[in-house]
Amino acid sequence: MRNILSYNSWDESFKAPFGALKTNESARIKVKVDRGYDIDKISLIIFKEEEFIDKVELYNVSSISDEDNNTEYEGNISGFKEAGLYNYYFEVATIIDGNYVNIPYGKSIKNGETCEYNYENLNKYQITVYEDFKVPEWYKEGILYHVFVDRFSNGNRNEKPSNPKENSFIYGNWTDTPMYIKDSNGDIIRWDFHGGNLKGVINKLGYLKKLGVSIIYLSPIFEASSNHKYDTGDYKKIDPMFGDEEIFKELIDKASKRGISIILDGVFSHTGADSKYFNKFGRYDTVGAYQSSESPYSSWYSFAEFPQKYKCWWDIDALPNTNELAPTFKDYIIHDEDSVLKKWTSLGVKGWRLDVADELPTQFIREFKEELRNVDKDTILVGEVWEDASNKVSYGERRSYLLGQELDSVMGYPFRKNIVSFLTGEVSSEELNNSYMQTKENYPQESFKSNLNLLGTHDVNRIKTELGEDRDLMKLAVTTQMMFEGVPYIYYGDEAGLSGKTDPDNRRTYPWKNEDEDMIDFYRHLIGARNRNQAIVSGNTKFVYTNNSEVFGFVRYNDNKDDDNVLVLLNRSNKNQNIKIHLDANMLDELDIVYSPRKYGLSIEKEDNIFDINVEAKSFRLFSVKVKEENIAEEVNA
Amino acid sequence: MRNILSYNSWDESFKAPFGALKTNESARIKVKVDRGYDIDKISLIIFKEEEFIDKVELYNVSSISDEDNNTEYEGNISGFKEAGLYNYYFEVATIIDGNYVNIPYGKSIKNGETCEYNYENLNKYQITVYEDFKVPEWYKEGILYHVFVDRFSNGNRNEKPSNPKENSFIYGNWTDTPMYIKDSNGDIIRWDFHGGNLKGVINKLGYLKKLGVSIIYLSPIFEASSNHKYDTGDYKKIDPMFGDEEIFKELIDKASKRGISIILDGVFSHTGADSKYFNKFGRYDTVGAYQSSESPYSSWYSFAEFPQKYKCWWDIDALPNTNELAPTFKDYIIHDEDSVLKKWTSLGVKGWRLDVADELPTQFIREFKEELRNVDKDTILVGEVWEDASNKVSYGERRSYLLGQELDSVMGYPFRKNIVSFLTGEVSSEELNNSYMQTKENYPQESFKSNLNLLGTHDVNRIKTELGEDRDLMKLAVTTQMMFEGVPYIYYGDEAGLSGKTDPDNRRTYPWKNEDEDMIDFYRHLIGARNRNQAIVSGNTKFVYTNNSEVFGFVRYNDNKDDDNVLVLLNRSNKNQNIKIHLDANMLDELDIVYSPRKYGLSIEKEDNIFDINVEAKSFRLFSVKVKEENIAEEVNA
Repeated sequence: MRNILSYNSWDESFKAPFGALKTNESARIKVKVDRGYDIDKISLIIFKEEEFIDKVELYNVSSISDEDNNTEYEGNISGFKEAGLYNYYFEVATIIDGNYVNIPYGKSIKNGETCEYNYENLNKYQITVYEDFKVPEWYKEGILYHVFVDRFSNGNRNEKPSNPKENSFIYGNWTDTPMYIKDSNGDIIRWDFHGGNLKGVINKLGYLKKLGVSIIYLSPIFEASSNHKYDTGDYKKIDPMFGDEEIFKELIDKASKRGISIILDGVFSHTGADSKYFNKFGRYDTVGAYQSSESPYSSWYSFAEFPQKYKCWWDIDALPNTNELAPTFKDYIIHDEDSVLKKWTSLGVKGWRLDVADELPTQFIREFKEELRNVDKDTILVGEVWEDASNKVSYGERRSYLLGQELDSVMGYPFRKNIVSFLTGEVSSEELNNSYMQTKENYPQESFKSNLNLLGTHDVNRIKTELGEDRDLMKLAVTTQMMFEGVPYIYYGDEAGLSGKTDPDNRRTYPWKNEDEDMIDFYRHLIGARNRNQAIVSGNTKFVYTNNSEVFGFVRYNDNKDDDNVLVLLNRSNKNQNIKIHLDANMLDELDIVYSPRKYGLSIEKEDNIFDINVEAKSFRLFSVKVKEENIAEEVNA
Repeated sequence: MRNILSYNSWDESFKAPFGALKTNESARIKVKVDRGYDIDKISLIIFKEEEFIDKVELYNVSSISDEDNNTEYEGNISGFKEAGLYNYYFEVATIIDGNYVNIPYGKSIKNGETCEYNYENLNKYQITVYEDFKVPEWYKEGILYHVFVDRFSNGNRNEKPSNPKENSFIYGNWTDTPMYIKDSNGDIIRWDFHGGNLKGVINKLGYLKKLGVSIIYLSPIFEASSNHKYDTGDYKKIDPMFGDEEIFKELIDKASKRGISIILDGVFSHTGADSKYFNKFGRYDTVGAYQSSESPYSSWYSFAEFPQKYKCWWDIDALPNTNELAPTFKDYIIHDEDSVLKKWTSLGVKGWRLDVADELPTQFIREFKEELRNVDKDTILVGEVWEDASNKVSYGERRSYLLGQELDSVMGYPFRKNIVSFLTGEVSSEELNNSYMQTKENYPQESFKSNLNLLGTHDVNRIKTELGEDRDLMKLAVTTQMMFEGVPYIYYGDEAGLSGKTDPDNRRTYPWKNEDEDMIDFYRHLIGARNRNQAIVSGNTKFVYTNNSEVFGFVRYNDNKDDDNVLVLLNRSNKNQNIKIHLDANMLDELDIVYSPRKYGLSIEKEDNIFDINVEAKSFRLFSVKVKEENIAEEVNA
């Protein structure tokens, strides 16, 4: 196949720096061109979104051909003033068979390499351009633990729930399997509670600290009818089943003393119908928007027909949508002296997770972020975004989550999807490399380092179940998570052996006194290994081509420090696998086993800096290595 | 209309004694015959069930005509050796228009009078002939209180339920409205509990005693999955949510010290599928009939196809039917040294209520009754029969419940139906009289005096709801119940103001701290009045013809004692009613108000022994009277 122009945006010898650019940051672009062609011009064509903004001519910079008879062209992207989503492709002007032609080279679908296209189906390279921002280290370097409050721990004496709601059910036993209580239409008619609460979280701070956790993300804790509390009834009140403000302060205080930060779930795209704002059932002593069009909250909601027909979240009657940009709503949530944001943040909350960020207007998120920074610049803002957050379009609008004025971090559902696809045999290790690299390329470096690398949440299958209840595969997923770049995100109970399909099965209670102790030890050990090694905590990542589709590998390294680096190898298959990796000879001696679930001896063969390493079936190896970036992860020629 | 023969089985001047006969007890039958006819013969034709057994010729015994130109014929029923359901009619042989004809006179549908019939549609008079039996006084003269255990009272500290079942729900609050938790097929998928228990009953003995209760009937208390426990799991074990044997003994002991007897609900027509006998879910460590055809319990059940298809109660999978006559079943329940009957009766249980008696074989009930008497002859046996138990046919078999070898008492659903029909305007006071009289005629006297006069159970609407939430009408129903012949049966919480439609709404929790105190006072006052007056407790009843369809009245009297008698008058209508009753003049002075919900003065007009009495709208009057039987309740000629 003809290949006039070669380029790989994932390789810094072609594009430097790698990945997203800060505003006004320039980049050097180099391509290789086949000398066998009569080249008229090589151009770099740049767009912002769909709009053409620049054409940069690349100049031939090498008179000497390389071994493949290529020459090099080079040019600069001089830097973009405005943050945004940019993209580019190359145009080769040449003469073929006597005809003058322009051939566009865009990005291969699968990795950073080029591919010849027609103009009609051209796939461009993305450059994310963002305003520089820093995410606080406590977050970027933390370990997050997601507590679904009702199901984590009941701190009351005798585990009797506090203040059960009218016409609600309490599970007979902490161990009972959750279920929804629905009528024949499938509508929930009673709420079910296990009785977990904030006292329970306080009681378990020691456990979490020992596990290595430094951030607790609490599912919503404000008063609401449901067990999940995404149907807020009162943004300024702790749900009485969960506790009260005093207990919440105690939690923040005690967590803080253990070096654990608390972040909250902010649910602003809708409220509960049963709320002091909408007050559909008249259970609050306010005049709610449902009750009167003279309600002080009327502008918060949209009625097609007052009061029966109103806009709801996913057509769920119980969740009327808010008009987030209504001035009184923004004031109430963000700007007032005693706004929701200020009230809770000033108590010591270190950050917020914005529920369904895709459904919040950009303006709302920006004002929230700005005010949050004003209250405490050491806080963070996370968004619930399920896809690549760098190029997400929601409701027809390109979102700017990661461009510096909105989110520090997003929920890493792609991380989970990728590792699961690999471990279940859907994709090869190379495809997994490519998926992770694509995110790494697209995200601002701070965003990638802050990405929540989750294996489970309350909205997806438990990781163990997703992996067919295979504990070995689960350990490979956890190893990836704990060794990866970004913030490990533990969904409560995953570490203790919980299984579960989708909601409500993924919301079973934490199995106190019946934990999978081996799995907890495994988590603890890996988190410990992470926390002791700065290359893992904050270093860069290079994916390793292992010449074996069953084995995934990567190296975590830290340029500027004298830290050990770490080589991670995972074999997903049922067979032992021998893989070859090209590593600098000096480093071999430095290899060391950090942790292994099975007992190995070192049995590594070396020849011409290519090492044969054995990884047992469904197992992994971690090596502490001294390595320089340029020496690792070279592809072994098969 | 021609009326050759007059007779009224409800009038002792025609038939004496009134009502059912003991075996070998003779009865005198008198009829009046119109002298205007040329009578050849008057015969009494007697059947046992459908079988003709005797023809008794009646003889003319009076030569003198009465004012209506009638003469009297008389004869004797000499007594029946065998208990059973007998019936009779009269045959008048006469000559009409020159023809010799036999005209049958049977029973009017509406009351005890005669009616001329064709032979084809003849309605015979019933005579119930029974083997003499005595029901213990503690029962006949008692006040029964039906406790649905899960919903009555939780005696635990903090009201935390004991030993909740696996995968069950506890209502968040004692006051929560009960509901079934069903899947989309309508099958119950989780059991719901309020957490009432035997300790709760113990705690409330003082309350019940003060109310005037002397018998507690407990809904089933043996181990079972459900909240109602009609799906027995283990007949020999108290359900752990309800308590244990020690607590049960404590209840019997403490109740006994207060003069309160405990009777149990015996559910033998089926067990739970989740039982040590059937063991469908393998939760018991026995080999259940579902698990193996070699199970020691195999003969207890009937499989159409082992093990999936088995006979169930009302096709409910969870309730496999038992073969009650299987020898090992009978032994286990009745005869073994440690049989279910003996185990619990010997602890001091004073009686049993047989659930769904219609579905139990006669032989089973008889053996149960015989063995029960052997263990303690002061015990009683009640049957769940919904209709007139004297002539009930179930599954094609005439039942012999009340004939002396089976039941002492049955659930008085007809009592409830009758008073409700009157109070809601469906029937007149005369029709109500007739309905009650019919039962009184059909039942052995001991059975009528032991009849459970219920206004509610766990299987029907709460009486208050049945009466349109009308507390005044409810008070009239309660007045009737408490003044009536038979055993008043209070369904827990009726006295405290509970409303409720059918199951589960009729199983709301007793409203502790939120009782209808006025209604409780009302019950207490009426029960007190009953218990202080032997004519009400054990006397006979004469219904009063009040010449007003809106006003129902009856007199309770006691021939052999010097007690006060009581006249009860109820006005169901929205208007004050003046009624006339014929009463002996001497008694007027003895009239006295026992209780009145409103303040009355005595304002009774008298003329020729006919008294005008005013009864206010939806109210009642009770008078204590000195009266002789023959002087009361004569019909006033309109």
